[in-house]
Amino acid sequence: MKLDTGLDAGAVRRYVEEHAGEFFDALKEWLTIPSISGDPAHADDVRRSAEWLAGRLRRIGFPTAEVWETGGLPAVFAEWPADDPNAPAVLVYGHHDVQPVDPRELWNTDPFGPVERDGRLVARGASDDKGQVFFHTLGVRANLAASGRGAPPVTLKLLIEGEEESGSTHLSALLRACRERLRCDTVVVSDTGLWSADTPSIVTGMRGAVSAQIDLSGLSRDLHSGQFGGAVPNPLHVLADLLAGLHDDEGRVTLPGFYDRVAEITDEERGLLARLPFDEARWLATAGSRATYGEEGFTTLERLWTRPTAEVNGMWGGYTGPGGKTIIPAEAHAKVSFRLVPDQYPAEVTAALRAYVQERVPPGIEVRVGELGPGVRPCVTPLDTPALQSVKRAMERAFGTEVLFTREGGSGPEADLAEILGAPLVYLGVILPDDRIHAPNEKVEMSLLLKAAESAAYLWDDLASAP
Amino acid sequence: MKLDTGLDAGAVRRYVEEHAGEFFDALKEWLTIPSISGDPAHADDVRRSAEWLAGRLRRIGFPTAEVWETGGLPAVFAEWPADDPNAPAVLVYGHHDVQPVDPRELWNTDPFGPVERDGRLVARGASDDKGQVFFHTLGVRANLAASGRGAPPVTLKLLIEGEEESGSTHLSALLRACRERLRCDTVVVSDTGLWSADTPSIVTGMRGAVSAQIDLSGLSRDLHSGQFGGAVPNPLHVLADLLAGLHDDEGRVTLPGFYDRVAEITDEERGLLARLPFDEARWLATAGSRATYGEEGFTTLERLWTRPTAEVNGMWGGYTGPGGKTIIPAEAHAKVSFRLVPDQYPAEVTAALRAYVQERVPPGIEVRVGELGPGVRPCVTPLDTPALQSVKRAMERAFGTEVLFTREGGSGPEADLAEILGAPLVYLGVILPDDRIHAPNEKVEMSLLLKAAESAAYLWDDLASAP
Repeated sequence: MKLDTGLDAGAVRRYVEEHAGEFFDALKEWLTIPSISGDPAHADDVRRSAEWLAGRLRRIGFPTAEVWETGGLPAVFAEWPADDPNAPAVLVYGHHDVQPVDPRELWNTDPFGPVERDGRLVARGASDDKGQVFFHTLGVRANLAASGRGAPPVTLKLLIEGEEESGSTHLSALLRACRERLRCDTVVVSDTGLWSADTPSIVTGMRGAVSAQIDLSGLSRDLHSGQFGGAVPNPLHVLADLLAGLHDDEGRVTLPGFYDRVAEITDEERGLLARLPFDEARWLATAGSRATYGEEGFTTLERLWTRPTAEVNGMWGGYTGPGGKTIIPAEAHAKVSFRLVPDQYPAEVTAALRAYVQERVPPGIEVRVGELGPGVRPCVTPLDTPALQSVKRAMERAFGTEVLFTREGGSGPEADLAEILGAPLVYLGVILPDDRIHAPNEKVEMSLLLKAAESAAYLWDDLASAP
Repeated sequence: MKLDTGLDAGAVRRYVEEHAGEFFDALKEWLTIPSISGDPAHADDVRRSAEWLAGRLRRIGFPTAEVWETGGLPAVFAEWPADDPNAPAVLVYGHHDVQPVDPRELWNTDPFGPVERDGRLVARGASDDKGQVFFHTLGVRANLAASGRGAPPVTLKLLIEGEEESGSTHLSALLRACRERLRCDTVVVSDTGLWSADTPSIVTGMRGAVSAQIDLSGLSRDLHSGQFGGAVPNPLHVLADLLAGLHDDEGRVTLPGFYDRVAEITDEERGLLARLPFDEARWLATAGSRATYGEEGFTTLERLWTRPTAEVNGMWGGYTGPGGKTIIPAEAHAKVSFRLVPDQYPAEVTAALRAYVQERVPPGIEVRVGELGPGVRPCVTPLDTPALQSVKRAMERAFGTEVLFTREGGSGPEADLAEILGAPLVYLGVILPDDRIHAPNEKVEMSLLLKAAESAAYLWDDLASAP
């Protein structure tokens, strides 16, 4: 158990409060840049966003702040070395690109004309992820103000990507190419959220993912079901059988070896997840679903965060227009995706899918399983990771209440970050579930960004004093 | 066992041969009328076709030949009474409407500019069904010429529909409304074919059919599979389970009670079907399929003609565009059709599908099974039907070889014809499997139309002399 460092909490909070206005004015300026990475028409805006951020980081004191080319859209790298050459290095990861704004007509205000309303800042990117990148500018200044030093207690590096919303296409290559400059002892990811404003929490893992397309062909053309029905194989029947067979009666995925590498949740984490105030009826309403469903023996949160899944994302084949058409279709297709948990590997799951499909497809039907991208590896931060305990202490100081642990069901580039940089990875983020990220009227709670800045200020001292 | 009637075969054949040129000239004139019933733009052409036929029938001697309104596209009714008021009445059924010509670019000649090539007449409708209606004009004239009488030996009625290629929408109502004028002792359907030119045959039954659409909805919107995957029901999984469960491991349909009314094929018919020279490899090539598949314990022909089926004709749901999209879709849909055999009823099968689906769909998923039309009932002519034996004798005289029995796997309005008119129903038709009906370059073998005319000439005398 580490002791609190000597940073004066009153001084940190005072600095944050006194500079909040200036902080939000600058953030709003950044939010006016429509840095939509998924739309090639906005490529210049993404570059403008990177340049704006690098300029801002230099202005607040980062000795180094550069725009890094990636082969795609640019990232920003900044570094503020500690005075002590033996101080640990911390790399903060976030992104400055944003999602598209469609459907535009559902926005109540201009997505790139940020407005304050009842303590909330509304704009595309307010929470995902410009707001969360930006609280670090306030956090490091508060740390310096409270400590009276001229440099942070850790060597602080920022890597702010410009392609996160379009698949982080060039991130791995960038991490490998610039491994030396990015070298660090801890990675801090600021792109996740809290359980709720009343129940602050830390993410400890994300699921991985891998997607594939299954294409079946059985006939050289669609056949008349009167002439041929009952005597030739129907690719839609075979597809239905393949997809129905992906799960057993207990909701478990049937691919050979699918669970072999799955790390079962510990009793400790199970107990911690059970402490989260989860309202299943409200969650169902949020999902727009009438019932829960899933692997037997697990709660809904355990299913979402700690269990792998197979989902059919789409399927099609044969006649789909109005009325009926009595054909046996020549082809059938499906898109499937798998959410993965440690220590599953995307390529192994794709191989298991291929084996399953080959084994099950009857004579007369040809099948092809095509990869849809390389997949994303799952990652988890063990609860006893020292840096995770540092984040917990820092947040508890800022929020004044116990901080719990969550995971996320989605997938991000964290496994690559941790592996390529060879450092433990922790999350510090304050998005709320109702922040409408990726949707119209995205917002961020301004008070939570300030709490996050305060947390960051404490975190650097806590990490610096680690043994 | 009936004896041959006294009609002189030499005289019949001579008449047919001497009038073949005139016969084909008139048929070609009719074939220039694009009577496509499925395309509202051709409604006037369908009417023109009906009027042309009625005029032609009057010209060759039918005392009555009328265009009948149906509420949809017009039919033609003609009647030529026998001299003997106690002679049996025979109703010939066929149709004067045709299929669309798409894809037009695959036709080598104008679909409505009939041309003769190597003994074949190429045009839309040449075999299906104008050629087959038209051979009756030559048949009845040959009968009269050979017998020297002024009227046929049976009261000959023709009902030539104008909506067969678009679902015979108004046929049942017409049959009921005009039952008195259509009253007959035998129905002869001329809209089917032969096993091959070398193996003449008679159809003895058609399968019925019924279609439905299954609509599943589970969620109020598509969900992100990272946020919700593994904890809510996926409508595509449920659809796959429903469709995969429609068949058991032996290829039998699992709907409750599905086989309860199925009349098993007799050993006699099984033996007769086995005599047909069936080349499975060639059949597979025609189907464009790599393997046969179907209900265990039955040959391919038995599966096609005497066994009911369930087919998925189309299914769709979720994301179907390029690349991947990790969603759990809100909805899933499928179109299914069933081929039926005596004595199954379309409405009972739809009810069984509803029961099956309701039983199998898990909590949280809403399901709707919608009917796609009222369905078509199966029909079969028992092998010992006297009129069937008459057709066999007539055709054997014309073809000079043994005539075998087949069935068809498709569906037509025959069950309604037989039931509403209360008469046994037999088939007399000479389409070949490679006549490309419903496809580009439809053709008919001209020599077979002449054999059919000759068969009809014998048939009227055979039926007239029935006890």
